[in-house]
Amino acid sequence: MRYRDAGVNIKTAQDAVKGIKRLARETFSPSVLTEIGDFGALFELGAKYTKPVLVASADGVGTKLEISMMTERFDTTSHDLVNHCVNDILTAGAEPLFFLDYIATSKLDEKMIEEVISGFTKGCKENSCSLIGGEMAEMPDFYKERHYDVAGFIVGVVEKEKIPSKNNVKPGDILIGLKSNGLHTNGFSLVRRIMFGKLKLTVDDYVPEIKNYVGDELLKVHRSYYPLLSEVRKTGIIKAYIHITGGGFYDNIPRSLPNNCSCVIDPTKWEHPPIFDFLMENGDIPIDEMYRTFNMGIGMILIIDKKDKEHLQKMLKDEEVFEIGKVTKGERTVRIIF
Amino acid sequence: MRYRDAGVNIKTAQDAVKGIKRLARETFSPSVLTEIGDFGALFELGAKYTKPVLVASADGVGTKLEISMMTERFDTTSHDLVNHCVNDILTAGAEPLFFLDYIATSKLDEKMIEEVISGFTKGCKENSCSLIGGEMAEMPDFYKERHYDVAGFIVGVVEKEKIPSKNNVKPGDILIGLKSNGLHTNGFSLVRRIMFGKLKLTVDDYVPEIKNYVGDELLKVHRSYYPLLSEVRKTGIIKAYIHITGGGFYDNIPRSLPNNCSCVIDPTKWEHPPIFDFLMENGDIPIDEMYRTFNMGIGMILIIDKKDKEHLQKMLKDEEVFEIGKVTKGERTVRIIF
Repeated sequence: MRYRDAGVNIKTAQDAVKGIKRLARETFSPSVLTEIGDFGALFELGAKYTKPVLVASADGVGTKLEISMMTERFDTTSHDLVNHCVNDILTAGAEPLFFLDYIATSKLDEKMIEEVISGFTKGCKENSCSLIGGEMAEMPDFYKERHYDVAGFIVGVVEKEKIPSKNNVKPGDILIGLKSNGLHTNGFSLVRRIMFGKLKLTVDDYVPEIKNYVGDELLKVHRSYYPLLSEVRKTGIIKAYIHITGGGFYDNIPRSLPNNCSCVIDPTKWEHPPIFDFLMENGDIPIDEMYRTFNMGIGMILIIDKKDKEHLQKMLKDEEVFEIGKVTKGERTVRIIF
Repeated sequence: MRYRDAGVNIKTAQDAVKGIKRLARETFSPSVLTEIGDFGALFELGAKYTKPVLVASADGVGTKLEISMMTERFDTTSHDLVNHCVNDILTAGAEPLFFLDYIATSKLDEKMIEEVISGFTKGCKENSCSLIGGEMAEMPDFYKERHYDVAGFIVGVVEKEKIPSKNNVKPGDILIGLKSNGLHTNGFSLVRRIMFGKLKLTVDDYVPEIKNYVGDELLKVHRSYYPLLSEVRKTGIIKAYIHITGGGFYDNIPRSLPNNCSCVIDPTKWEHPPIFDFLMENGDIPIDEMYRTFNMGIGMILIIDKKDKEHLQKMLKDEEVFEIGKVTKGERTVRIIF
């Protein structure tokens, strides 16, 4: 018996790695010292930081991947993953340095892997981040046929004194909401239950209420806020960044509130993309559950001093900036005025 | 409909995170600035490095995980994963700084997750590495029942001038083999095919030829070579570290050979653990395939100048050191004298 008789073909993996190398090399900053495929990937931090703090995050895409499989479009969810990771470390004020991926599947399919990787490289280019390594695992008898999973890992850096501290947040500060472009990467188990289970839609169906095809709407790429915020990040006016991901408003906002603060949010202050109304109505979802599960049109919240609002708006240029709420005295609760 | 009706229970995840926090905190070095559960994990690099190069690696455990599922022991494969990652970055001379994990499963089981995490923390403690974050994904309808996958991400650091360069490797250098304790983490698709498919063994069977129970033998934890090599690493006598993983001797050794070098290996120079003979005989595996798939009892190879052998042995104290081969002129080929 040979290893390939057990369903594993190292040769296919090596061929796939060649394609990956070519794509990944396009993302390399001059700090990358190695080639993809070495045991460890080398990234020179350099001397430009005085008190560097590394900020790291690991993430998956969750069941949004099912939509990739249903549509056979594999380059968007990997792009999602990079942007999600970038947003997560941005909450600590970090600029992205490098990204590594993990792809596991029942059987390596070179074309599909290349699409997945091309999504990673798109995300890395968008965020000036180098794709320096990863792992590809072929696991026969393990994943369902044609199923795969991906995980992403990012490392960024921030100067120690530039890390936003929630201790600077105080009653009277305002919450600035930045637009999401749709569902981003959370709540997909519920979304799938409604769209495909209850409504029996397919990814190719056009839905007039959301003015889009199901597949296209669900695969919209998670917005990265780093390109928008990379400069304002340096001014120090942002007291907290809140990435609205799994757990929605209720679980994510308190992470950035000090012990003596709560917040109140007015959802009439921004326009909710139609996908959320569509899901709420067709899924018969209670309104508080919507805000506990989805981003509701706001993918990132910034907490700033009220006096800095104009400065922020000026720096963000054409970006619509919504004052969605304010910080109050309290014990880290989130009240949404329905 | 609520999110939990879709098979997702954020509450269970939050409870699991509490257990994880407690375990992970035990691994924290003073450089860790945050708690588990923040969007991004903060690690202060500090001022002790003059030209720090970060070394990163991503890995999975592959189908060795099936053995965890068969035995319902979930704390060894995660330990494997840390050690595997540590060995990978050690090849660049790096000391481990921090580790992040990804766990995905069909349904979160607090006890199982805690076992998985306890394996990560054991590995992190063994290697003076901080478990600073991770992602836990519950993916209903995605993974097979009670199936899960894990991925690990490590970041270490090395001073730029301490990175071993294969350009220092020259004909006449010797290959030093360091013992593995068994299969480590590679070749498990083939192992499972033979042990469970062909021989119809169960994990509870005792096999006299290997003097061990199948489950115990297959779950032996991948050895980390960092504790053994952390000091000798600083001397600069090691020209190359070769971690024998997927692809065995034939694929891994050439990664560390310069263009004008090959190597020849004499497998009579070390004792092969009985599991390898057992697999070769019962699986009817050609000998070259054995060396292309398994570590054959050698988990790490060091290339050094012949004159440094005594110095190395002295520093490694009680560790058995095998001179398994030598570097020759050639074009990056590996010849094993069967």
